Amino acid sequence: MDVFKESLSLHEKYRGKIEINSKVPVSTMHDLSLAYSPGVAAPCEAIKKNEDDIYKYTSKGNIVAVVTDGSAVLGLGNIGPNAALPVMEGKSILLKEFADVDSFPLCLDTQDVEKIIDTCKIIAPSLGGINLEDISSPRCVEIERRLIDELDIPVFHDDQHGTAIVVAAGLLNACRLTNRKIDDLKVVISGTGAAGGSIIRILRRLGITRITAFDLRGIVHKSKLDQYVGIEKELVDLTVAPDVLTDDTLGAILTGADVFIGVSAAGLVSKEMVESMNKDPFIFAMANPVPEIMPEDALEAGAYIVGTGRSDYPNQVNNVLAFPGIFRGALDVRARKINEEMKMAAARAISDCIPANELRKDYIVPSPFDKNVAKKVAEAVMKEARATGVARV
Amino acid sequence: MDVFKESLSLHEKYRGKIEINSKVPVSTMHDLSLAYSPGVAAPCEAIKKNEDDIYKYTSKGNIVAVVTDGSAVLGLGNIGPNAALPVMEGKSILLKEFADVDSFPLCLDTQDVEKIIDTCKIIAPSLGGINLEDISSPRCVEIERRLIDELDIPVFHDDQHGTAIVVAAGLLNACRLTNRKIDDLKVVISGTGAAGGSIIRILRRLGITRITAFDLRGIVHKSKLDQYVGIEKELVDLTVAPDVLTDDTLGAILTGADVFIGVSAAGLVSKEMVESMNKDPFIFAMANPVPEIMPEDALEAGAYIVGTGRSDYPNQVNNVLAFPGIFRGALDVRARKINEEMKMAAARAISDCIPANELRKDYIVPSPFDKNVAKKVAEAVMKEARATGVARV
Repeated sequence: MDVFKESLSLHEKYRGKIEINSKVPVSTMHDLSLAYSPGVAAPCEAIKKNEDDIYKYTSKGNIVAVVTDGSAVLGLGNIGPNAALPVMEGKSILLKEFADVDSFPLCLDTQDVEKIIDTCKIIAPSLGGINLEDISSPRCVEIERRLIDELDIPVFHDDQHGTAIVVAAGLLNACRLTNRKIDDLKVVISGTGAAGGSIIRILRRLGITRITAFDLRGIVHKSKLDQYVGIEKELVDLTVAPDVLTDDTLGAILTGADVFIGVSAAGLVSKEMVESMNKDPFIFAMANPVPEIMPEDALEAGAYIVGTGRSDYPNQVNNVLAFPGIFRGALDVRARKINEEMKMAAARAISDCIPANELRKDYIVPSPFDKNVAKKVAEAVMKEARATGVARV
Repeated sequence: MDVFKESLSLHEKYRGKIEINSKVPVSTMHDLSLAYSPGVAAPCEAIKKNEDDIYKYTSKGNIVAVVTDGSAVLGLGNIGPNAALPVMEGKSILLKEFADVDSFPLCLDTQDVEKIIDTCKIIAPSLGGINLEDISSPRCVEIERRLIDELDIPVFHDDQHGTAIVVAAGLLNACRLTNRKIDDLKVVISGTGAAGGSIIRILRRLGITRITAFDLRGIVHKSKLDQYVGIEKELVDLTVAPDVLTDDTLGAILTGADVFIGVSAAGLVSKEMVESMNKDPFIFAMANPVPEIMPEDALEAGAYIVGTGRSDYPNQVNNVLAFPGIFRGALDVRARKINEEMKMAAARAISDCIPANELRKDYIVPSPFDKNVAKKVAEAVMKEARATGVARV
């Protein structure tokens, strides 16, 4: 049975993947009188007196809503809020399994940016955080930024930052393994959607200045400013490009590059293109399920290190390495937000999960099942939240 | 330790009362490939093709949001969404414990009727139903009516109908025990808030026509129409009152009544007032924690049957007898709404849980811990949903 048929059976057998349980006993009248009326009036009144006590007496501090509008679900596109639900439930159980974060899906019946923002703000009182999911770019960036500004609980759009953080960790380890300085690298990014934009930003923070980006409209270039929507325009300033575009192809910018990072589409990169790169390039070809170039082809063409999004090849860039620990850490210090420094700290923590003497070409990214990773990420995120003043405890 | 201190300790110890767990295994890479990427694309695509499959492949069909704006919480009043959260979590665990319904709290940061309605509509795609809770009257009635009209999932405001359904069950049993015809009864209701309004409506459906209501403004009367807000005006037509109000007191209308139903405030009814009622009256004094008249006083003054909201007296009118089974039944037939007929069916099912030969003056309402009740209520609600054409399966 293939994975799709088997998945369908699993979902049908269990009728979805999440359930909500009581943490407290509810068997006797006395139990009820504590958990519900009349005893429950006591925590209510305590919170009314001191709003911060909501973290002491309720589940808020450990509850995250996984919010989507269904506009950009997996590789399936704009399939709407109903069809998106299985993915959101999946996210919920990963948060629980990897970081003991309780979460539930909310699939919104609107794709209007202002309504999504309003809804998240209105439902915030009972939430410890919000994980935005599968919202199309560039709307997702505006929604996330506004919510980070306007709410005092952590809001994180995993499609943007999850991949960026893990790819940054992989790149840090590729440099550790090969003794290369990260800020010397010349990087080409294919794809400027949710993940691509965040990757560009995190690489800049890592000190990389020579980043060139490519998307369906060709090389990201100042001459195309009028084609870019909203925050897409920012990418022109964050990347470098030839002054005049004589050859507006991915091949043109890959020549002489050290790193290729693909969050775009199957088969965009040929062996010849890899051969045109500098010696021993790093290739992160993360289009899913079929990468920009298959690992065996990239290696044959001279790639030194290859990562993909796939579990059946080495160096899987899986954002489950990032988001559970990030939320765990942010919740544990009641962070008002997840800032850039915390994301960088998460990337460094993931890379540090592999000791120097264990690093190999085919092991620069920890296994998604290394349970140590979420713990290390959470610790790093907490420390950085405190250092940057966004922690409340 | 008193119940309030003990409740505070319990809430602090567990940090709230709910957690969200996975129903499916998440231990191996293969598990992940089924529950999440890439396998999860299969249920997404199935739902995209046939929207009804959301009930087959997701948890939607068993998930209820417990929604409040914190405007009328227990007897605590308008304490706001944060302080309301312990009650909402309590409701969640009751739904799980009594009827295996999964639910989570959403405390809304708005008390604007239109925004509450909009928010509920926007979050509906991933929900099987909505339990409105602790929203002040008469706003709660408008919100519930609009949502019932505008959504195709069950929406139920327990504060209105929960008490009404259980008191109707108690009244049916009081009549069974005493061989009285329910439509002969002359009833006085004290309190015209969320519960009072719903009680008046359900008693009308039971065939009772002689209902007189009383609230802070005195006897409900056509001469006060300009004092009533929104749907409060409807109560004038649903109740009877003297043509001219010479004595605008509760005592005036209790004289010669058969039944007193209080959802108002402590101590409003004196022994003399009970003595002025018809022989062997039924008294449901449900103000909490202190009833309109204490049971011992009511009995001394000639009451035949006394019910309260308290667990330390017989005949506890506890809405946990109603809402879990109602949601269970509505979810199991994917009811588009919970209509009046389904509420009546629930009331009859609760009363039928006590066989005729077991009925006693101090046992006309089943125990809240009689697990049979939710099952019987669910069956009756399902049957009635099918009979009235609101069931989808």
